[in-house]
Amino acid sequence: MSTVRVAGTGLTPFGNVPERTGRDLFAEASIAAFDDSGVPREDVEAVFYGNFMGELAEHQGHQGPLMAEAAGVQAPATRYESACASSGAAVRDAVFRIRNGDADVVLVGGAERMTNLGTAGATEALAIAADDLWEVRAGMTFPGAYALMAQAYFAEYGGEREDLAHVAVKNHENALPNEKAQYQSAITVEDVLEAPPVSAPIGLYDSCPISDGAAALVLTSEAYAEEHDLDAPVAITGTGQGGDRMALHDREHLARSPAAREAGEEAYADAGVDASDVDLAEVHDCFTIAEVLAIEALDLERIGEGISAARDGRTTADGETPVNLSGGLKAKGHPVGATGASQIAEIATLLTGDHPNDGYVEDATIGVAHNAGGTVASATVHVLEVIA
Amino acid sequence: MSTVRVAGTGLTPFGNVPERTGRDLFAEASIAAFDDSGVPREDVEAVFYGNFMGELAEHQGHQGPLMAEAAGVQAPATRYESACASSGAAVRDAVFRIRNGDADVVLVGGAERMTNLGTAGATEALAIAADDLWEVRAGMTFPGAYALMAQAYFAEYGGEREDLAHVAVKNHENALPNEKAQYQSAITVEDVLEAPPVSAPIGLYDSCPISDGAAALVLTSEAYAEEHDLDAPVAITGTGQGGDRMALHDREHLARSPAAREAGEEAYADAGVDASDVDLAEVHDCFTIAEVLAIEALDLERIGEGISAARDGRTTADGETPVNLSGGLKAKGHPVGATGASQIAEIATLLTGDHPNDGYVEDATIGVAHNAGGTVASATVHVLEVIA
Repeated sequence: MSTVRVAGTGLTPFGNVPERTGRDLFAEASIAAFDDSGVPREDVEAVFYGNFMGELAEHQGHQGPLMAEAAGVQAPATRYESACASSGAAVRDAVFRIRNGDADVVLVGGAERMTNLGTAGATEALAIAADDLWEVRAGMTFPGAYALMAQAYFAEYGGEREDLAHVAVKNHENALPNEKAQYQSAITVEDVLEAPPVSAPIGLYDSCPISDGAAALVLTSEAYAEEHDLDAPVAITGTGQGGDRMALHDREHLARSPAAREAGEEAYADAGVDASDVDLAEVHDCFTIAEVLAIEALDLERIGEGISAARDGRTTADGETPVNLSGGLKAKGHPVGATGASQIAEIATLLTGDHPNDGYVEDATIGVAHNAGGTVASATVHVLEVIA
Repeated sequence: MSTVRVAGTGLTPFGNVPERTGRDLFAEASIAAFDDSGVPREDVEAVFYGNFMGELAEHQGHQGPLMAEAAGVQAPATRYESACASSGAAVRDAVFRIRNGDADVVLVGGAERMTNLGTAGATEALAIAADDLWEVRAGMTFPGAYALMAQAYFAEYGGEREDLAHVAVKNHENALPNEKAQYQSAITVEDVLEAPPVSAPIGLYDSCPISDGAAALVLTSEAYAEEHDLDAPVAITGTGQGGDRMALHDREHLARSPAAREAGEEAYADAGVDASDVDLAEVHDCFTIAEVLAIEALDLERIGEGISAARDGRTTADGETPVNLSGGLKAKGHPVGATGASQIAEIATLLTGDHPNDGYVEDATIGVAHNAGGTVASATVHVLEVIA
């Protein structure tokens, strides 16, 4: 079984560029990833591409071959769609492909064009990640769904809006030096509490933005990396995926994410690590409450204790286990199909010391990436380790 | 490396049922597949689901977990989208997963709801499999694209509309005993030639219909099949995938399908067979010309000679290598996301002698399934063999 090396990573800036197409964005990210890797495009054997709403936002399906072309790659390409966990799902199948010797070099990534739809249009399009028949037609959108999850959390474990506000403040703080982030601006707890309400207890600053952007990864087998003397010290050593009922009303518990827990347990076991070994994490904070649920599901915090993690400084940049040093979805932005791959890119860069925030994690060797779809009906978790 | 067994297959009738949802269709197909397999749902470790246009036709993305739920399965699920080769792509990753020991039991399949859009709406939706910026906005739809391919074929290799008509006549003939087929009706060459023109030389009867339907497969490892004494004598022994430039104007040759050739060569090599070993094939005849290009790409016919295969009887039910004994997309129907998985189901059933047309292929041991996306910018090929 070959270890999967991260040979190169590339990100576009995440933000509001409605005039740019998905292919344009992915071309930029893939150029950066190839440049970073030193791997020639001709060596790529397969493309794993994540995209969520291109059929609605760009009237474009079948993006696999289109994105291979945008990346200058001649290789079979498939689109993976798992709502906001689309490129997490793409990474997972790519890991299996390399690990088992079915490919030595692959291009993985994702992109999303969203802002061209406008905020209302994008919110409507994002709703297709929920159950159309039983949730969307009843008026449910994602801020409302996560608001219910937050209310259930508060009711069962305690906590308050101010605890959640600290998640947003932390992630904006982390994004300050990240030039690719959509928001490089500090906010205060007061800003979050006073922001326009969206769906109680979720306010505008509890919510990630609508974003355009792309992420790309060049992954290789260990043998290829060594043979070509690549500078690729980080490996993806664990992969996990979990699933849950689609609609929130079918869940056993609104304030837990068993799909993410299942994915995390599988990924940890796969890598042979446990949560206490994790030095840093990028988690899917589409809303502030989502980060709380994620760190509990990943066993970085005990159930009911994640709510205080940001407020008490356990997940801040200088805390025990920094979470979302990139700025997270909240401040870095959330171009849906790009997010899962971008998390892997951020961790790989943090672990190798080329990240604006790597000063906080100088001795870090293990990072974990948590990507979630919908109200966590889907989740993927990947463990990255410095091994060379 | 484990051999991948086809433990059970299930198909809905393909046809015009606009009132049925995708989840309803997939539930039916998966129930049939589980019943056929004798495998309990609890043993399923992952779901690989193909769907193409659900975001447009049902305002529903994130169909992986939704379809796992519809199938009564609690397991991680991902949607694979590769236009009309969506479930072919799903089968491919499922094969890798089992073969390499990462799962013993998986549910694979696909569904598509299309007729609720109406013919014009479905044609518009199908167009997202082409390049939106450079083809669709210029007015290109798929009948037009395949008409160009047919014209290029005629110009280079000869042939005429009547040759193509024999493909349609053959496939309708094959569908006569297939109760799941959308059309159980014989047509004549004259019917095809006199049908309303769509885009010269493609007429209405050269084109597959708009269809609703679903297909499901329960695949297991050899070890699982033997341990549980399953009746699963057919294995998927070869998988291949190819890619090409998305837009027709970027191709080197309009009348060849290098993506399908690449997929076929990979699948044959993977299975350790060659084209001369193939006893029967299900190929992606979305238009009559597509079957001609497919059998050439699969090396079942030499380049330039596929055009005469149906007319001269080489691919008829009693010919050397029967092609589309199910009726093919042309007569069985083409619910896009279901098609690739349905081809695997048809071949497995033909090889085990439970198919209405298996009398034509009594001694057959090797079948091949060819699933194509767009104008064959994507293709998957799978080889099935009787091994037990």
